[in-house]
Amino acid sequence: MAATKRAPAGAAVLRGDITAAIRNAVMNELAEVGYGRLSIEAVARRAGVGKTAVYRRWSNKLEMVLEIVSGVAERSVPMPDTGSFATDLQLTMFIVSKALQHRIASQIIPDLMAEAARNPKIAETLHRALRTHQTAVGETIVGQAVARGELPEGTDPGIAVDLMIGPLYWHLAVTRTPIDEDYLEKMANAVTAALKAAPAGPPAP
Amino acid sequence: MAATKRAPAGAAVLRGDITAAIRNAVMNELAEVGYGRLSIEAVARRAGVGKTAVYRRWSNKLEMVLEIVSGVAERSVPMPDTGSFATDLQLTMFIVSKALQHRIASQIIPDLMAEAARNPKIAETLHRALRTHQTAVGETIVGQAVARGELPEGTDPGIAVDLMIGPLYWHLAVTRTPIDEDYLEKMANAVTAALKAAPAGPPAP
Repeated sequence: MAATKRAPAGAAVLRGDITAAIRNAVMNELAEVGYGRLSIEAVARRAGVGKTAVYRRWSNKLEMVLEIVSGVAERSVPMPDTGSFATDLQLTMFIVSKALQHRIASQIIPDLMAEAARNPKIAETLHRALRTHQTAVGETIVGQAVARGELPEGTDPGIAVDLMIGPLYWHLAVTRTPIDEDYLEKMANAVTAALKAAPAGPPAP
Repeated sequence: MAATKRAPAGAAVLRGDITAAIRNAVMNELAEVGYGRLSIEAVARRAGVGKTAVYRRWSNKLEMVLEIVSGVAERSVPMPDTGSFATDLQLTMFIVSKALQHRIASQIIPDLMAEAARNPKIAETLHRALRTHQTAVGETIVGQAVARGELPEGTDPGIAVDLMIGPLYWHLAVTRTPIDEDYLEKMANAVTAALKAAPAGPPAP
């Protein structure tokens, strides 16, 4: 299919509904066939657009997949600011637990993790997508809690993020075990106790 | 290559060195090409044996991969019994952190997680391999600590396992971030504080 690469004169605007349809098609193709077998042709077909519509937005498969998955990963954990550490923590863990039951956590991220070992660009983007935003969330929640006197000075936001997300990720996405009704409350209490008791030590001399 | 299918008369014993070579070849093939593209032919070639040698041990690819990966996952976390909860915990977290830097955690398990969404048998075996042994380790460490009075009665071993493994898995295997020198000590202190403060509540009435 010899699609015209050149956009019509003056038409630099990309239609949002087409972009949304392509994003949706990419997520569905990733879930069904995985990164290795995903093709631009199949994405375009599923979105009901020509391949040109895809190439107008992203220059190749790798760039397209990484931009779309990073976006979803970031939007899935919003920045809470409820005025209380306990509530910020419970809210974040609740949202994370919901996000982790989505196929992006149990299927798409694992698939990209496996590809990452063969492709340093995927490794780097995945690292950035999963780490940067989560670190910002951790720094904000912990910073606010320290300012309000709810957590000790020097509480490590990195430890906080790992404690907020890690147990849920392991339990839900890796071992695929449903959580009991009181699990989130128990885990939020445990994480609070962990952070109250374990401020960062002084920097090594 | 036409390997003789019939074993020598009376020879039901499988040679351990050949089994080890095949196991090794399976792990290497999984890391290189992933489950979907792994073939018995390539495994046999890499192990330097005939396909018959593989089929004498496992009846198909799925059974072979699941048995080998489950075995490695179980052996990678031994049961500690040092006489002190703090030391049991530090030792377990140290071993887990080493195991998680192995390609089985960053590559092979993610690959099987992605396959699991398409294949319930993989999902079930992975769930069992990752959950059963780890639960037993958690129950033993926590049980010993409760008996010694180091943790409160009713401490939840499931919460303990998720706290011991989850943050390390998230940090090392998912976000692929190296850990700082003092990370394990800080995290072990945090987990101890979490468990001391958070015994299981009474069952809901």
